[in-house]
Amino acid sequence: MSIIFVGCQLQYNIFTPTSFLLNISAAMNDYQQIRNEQIDVTPFQQLEQCQIGPHGNRLFRLIGQPGQLKIGYQAEVELQSAAVDSNNVNESSYSSLPPEVLIFLNPSRYCESDKLNRFAMEEFGSLLPGYSRVTAICNWTFDYLTYTPGSTGPTTTACDVLLQRTGVCRDYAHVAISLCRAMGIPARYVAGYAVHLQPPDFHGFFEAYLDGRWFLFDATRMAPVGGFVRIGTGRDAADVAFATMVGAADCFEMCVWANDSDSFNGGPGSDDVRSGLSSA
Amino acid sequence: MSIIFVGCQLQYNIFTPTSFLLNISAAMNDYQQIRNEQIDVTPFQQLEQCQIGPHGNRLFRLIGQPGQLKIGYQAEVELQSAAVDSNNVNESSYSSLPPEVLIFLNPSRYCESDKLNRFAMEEFGSLLPGYSRVTAICNWTFDYLTYTPGSTGPTTTACDVLLQRTGVCRDYAHVAISLCRAMGIPARYVAGYAVHLQPPDFHGFFEAYLDGRWFLFDATRMAPVGGFVRIGTGRDAADVAFATMVGAADCFEMCVWANDSDSFNGGPGSDDVRSGLSSA
Amino acid sequence: MSIIFVGCQLQYNIFTPTSFLLNISAAMNDYQQIRNEQIDVTPFQQLEQCQIGPHGNRLFRLIGQPGQLKIGYQAEVELQSAAVDSNNVNESSYSSLPPEVLIFLNPSRYCESDKLNRFAMEEFGSLLPGYSRVTAICNWTFDYLTYTPGSTGPTTTACDVLLQRTGVCRDYAHVAISLCRAMGIPARYVAGYAVHLQPPDFHGFFEAYLDGRWFLFDATRMAPVGGFVRIGTGRDAADVAFATMVGAADCFEMCVWANDSDSFNGGPGSDDVRSGLSSA
Amino acid sequence: MSIIFVGCQLQYNIFTPTSFLLNISAAMNDYQQIRNEQIDVTPFQQLEQCQIGPHGNRLFRLIGQPGQLKIGYQAEVELQSAAVDSNNVNESSYSSLPPEVLIFLNPSRYCESDKLNRFAMEEFGSLLPGYSRVTAICNWTFDYLTYTPGSTGPTTTACDVLLQRTGVCRDYAHVAISLCRAMGIPARYVAGYAVHLQPPDFHGFFEAYLDGRWFLFDATRMAPVGGFVRIGTGRDAADVAFATMVGAADCFEMCVWANDSDSFNGGPGSDDVRSGLSSA
Repeated sequence: MSIIFVGCQLQYNIFTPTSFLLNISAAMNDYQQIRNEQIDVTPFQQLEQCQIGPHGNRLFRLIGQPGQLKIGYQAEVELQSAAVDSNNVNESSYSSLPPEVLIFLNPSRYCESDKLNRFAMEEFGSLLPGYSRVTAICNWTFDYLTYTPGSTGPTTTACDVLLQRTGVCRDYAHVAISLCRAMGIPARYVAGYAVHLQPPDFHGFFEAYLDGRWFLFDATRMAPVGGFVRIGTGRDAADVAFATMVGAADCFEMCVWANDSDSFNGGPGSDDVRSGLSSA
Repeated sequence: MSIIFVGCQLQYNIFTPTSFLLNISAAMNDYQQIRNEQIDVTPFQQLEQCQIGPHGNRLFRLIGQPGQLKIGYQAEVELQSAAVDSNNVNESSYSSLPPEVLIFLNPSRYCESDKLNRFAMEEFGSLLPGYSRVTAICNWTFDYLTYTPGSTGPTTTACDVLLQRTGVCRDYAHVAISLCRAMGIPARYVAGYAVHLQPPDFHGFFEAYLDGRWFLFDATRMAPVGGFVRIGTGRDAADVAFATMVGAADCFEMCVWANDSDSFNGGPGSDDVRSGLSSA
Repeated sequence: MSIIFVGCQLQYNIFTPTSFLLNISAAMNDYQQIRNEQIDVTPFQQLEQCQIGPHGNRLFRLIGQPGQLKIGYQAEVELQSAAVDSNNVNESSYSSLPPEVLIFLNPSRYCESDKLNRFAMEEFGSLLPGYSRVTAICNWTFDYLTYTPGSTGPTTTACDVLLQRTGVCRDYAHVAISLCRAMGIPARYVAGYAVHLQPPDFHGFFEAYLDGRWFLFDATRMAPVGGFVRIGTGRDAADVAFATMVGAADCFEMCVWANDSDSFNGGPGSDDVRSGLSSA
Repeated sequence: MSIIFVGCQLQYNIFTPTSFLLNISAAMNDYQQIRNEQIDVTPFQQLEQCQIGPHGNRLFRLIGQPGQLKIGYQAEVELQSAAVDSNNVNESSYSSLPPEVLIFLNPSRYCESDKLNRFAMEEFGSLLPGYSRVTAICNWTFDYLTYTPGSTGPTTTACDVLLQRTGVCRDYAHVAISLCRAMGIPARYVAGYAVHLQPPDFHGFFEAYLDGRWFLFDATRMAPVGGFVRIGTGRDAADVAFATMVGAADCFEMCVWANDSDSFNGGPGSDDVRSGLSSA
């Protein structure tokens, strides 16, 4: 069990009344207990909370009026980290997959697994099934790609990335998810906070379904999996954008932080643990 | 209210033990009552029924052993057809959309709405919002494309189709869905049976979310919307394949039928209402 | 007959010895006479002049050493403008096309005409063949797209642009070329200088082969065709990049100008006729 | 020096007057001497011979009238096979490439080398430059892909093939060409006849420019390079289709043969050396 302090601060210039859907709050599930959660909007308004899907995604919706808008979020998250004995984790047979898991075998917008069946089989078909094969997919993705901020954009897909061989966290996740699905392993995208991520930002990682449950993986090796705090779960990044806006608004400041109790020295406002950064 | 008799018969040669996920049974929901449903598998085995997602999709799963496999399905479906006064159906504002509807604004594997924002705005941005705008999208799709069996395949997307300007029912639905989403109108794919479809086959159509509920549309004009029997609902065709197989098997015969009480003269075995056809 | 004063000035920071292939000098052909041409490289070195292909492309090649490199080009170009009676210009039949023109019917990297046969036929197949049909393709392209600097990049193709509906001059040319070829009209890309272009830059336009000769067109309407000075001709923009570098160098300044005798008040160094700009 | 007997027979049903451009005759160049060449068209008509480009491509053009059309070609080709000491063949530096070779560094319709710079550098950047590096590209392509007739079509590109990992000879050539160009090695497509090809068909291979001349390679390993008879040379397969038709006609029979003097027992009409086959 560990405690992670997460949060973000977003500032917008709004030009016309704009609907915001914010996907920044830690999900509530068996592995994450949320304490002391706080969300502040300036100027003040009541937020609508939306629960989407069966994965505990908790979104906030608001309508911003022309002018500036500041959104601050912080929470203390207690993580239950289940120790994994990866040696004994097998892949589930197709016929044993729970019905609700089956959709995570389907291709999605940024994960064209339907085009990669042979690719995946050639690279990973001869490996022993199980947790170690997903680890092999992560290792392969890490070796194959070069982490390159700015090299991809919002419409970049796993197939694009396999050709250009550069990307950011979201692209690493899309590649690994696509290869898993092409191998018959259900996989899904997870957006969240990550302790020790440099530079701090929202992070994208993924889960594979093995032996009757979901396991967390990160092909980027940029942060320890044990320090991930889930915001939302979806088929790919299309489902868990941190902010969706309908209207006219620009983000001019964005800070994200995630600290475990060891590294934590402050919180929002404490310069040593926060960093301003722009994010795609 | 009308009664539709639907069914299909599928025959496979199986080479190795093969898992089948069958998406052929009529969905159960407020608009569809199922009566006298029957599914037969030869050689006999017990089927596992899977309910996937919140849309009433009812799938069957089985493991076929090497040899031949015959699957027959039939049902009598009572349709509640709600009369639509399309003049008074508006688009829902983004901030009023129910949370569970929001994912149907996201791009999906075959509906790259994120690449078509300007395309949609240029073509439909000046039209009055509402049911009539979705009708305009259907009309545009119908005029823009030429229905051409064999011109597309399982990996063809809405963007591909917008360039090549040919497709089949699934492609028409993908184009219309993509343009709706790009306009901010939630849209989703529906697979089903369709009365009067020539040649008979499974059909793909779509739903748009307007004024607080889902409305059925079909850009192909190949069959009356009032005679559609829903099998399954998903983001696009990736979610509702009629048969998914893991193993080694070939389909060598496929018959599909859908008849309203007026045209119905028989059922499976009655030559005048059934047609053998191959389907992608 | 008119006189155009053209030129450019390019400045680079060079980090390792770098080969430059420069495609900035006005082509020599029956319609363009070059006078008082001057190319200066600082620090001084001898340039190698390369003639590529049968279209009069004149390239310069040099190897830049680490440090700064300044390249200045200027020329006085006498243009023979043939008056076109567009009413009497027909399309050439396939069997009458000169052999050397046939390659300009083939698809190329940024002009996937092989994917657009039906698209072109649907839009332009019912129009009368001839010069007026190419004009219709230009008008359609102009109406269909929105000129948007920065909206496309070096790998963007005509098909990409037909979907996103934005682009710059090179993209307008690629779309029009693709549609011409798909209609059976040979078409090729022309890079050059253009009088009255705002902001001044190298320009991309195109030629269509009609009635036994090539005619110049520009779907952007950004500058008068009569003020175009050709630098190079190719299948698409891949063939006529103004600078190709092998090594490590950054362009930190680029000026381009083109003035007819009426507007000409100076030359390089005269502020009123030059503009610094960055170009992709 | 060796003698190869090549030929083909094509039969068409023609529905409307149709222009044919045939690219089936062996090229004439320093390495190929043509003897006893014969081309027969039934019903008889005079053919127009077209020389396209600087590479010795010799095309025939004719207009077929409605009805059947039979085209027969045969020739005896004397090949000068230059022995290659591959150990001493280096890559040419960019600045030393002859101007007319430079275009074969540019990306083309089916060889998107501009998208594969990093891909090529990651796979081949650490190898010693020279003939052996192109051999390594061929070996890699051979290992990476699975030869699968019917898996690709006329619009399939090198990038598509790198993802799906199947293809036919044309695709193998496109992949190898793209990777060469991305490494700075000029490369071009060659269509021709190939001795010992099974099943017999037109073949696609490629040339790379090294040390001042073009060298022939074939990544498919399906036939000995020493038995290749060149028909045409181009940027990629778009430039050397064996038959281009404008009109309405169907090919209903196609035979291709290529035999060296050892295996030669007959010619057209001799069953043991000819095979009927359909070709994309």
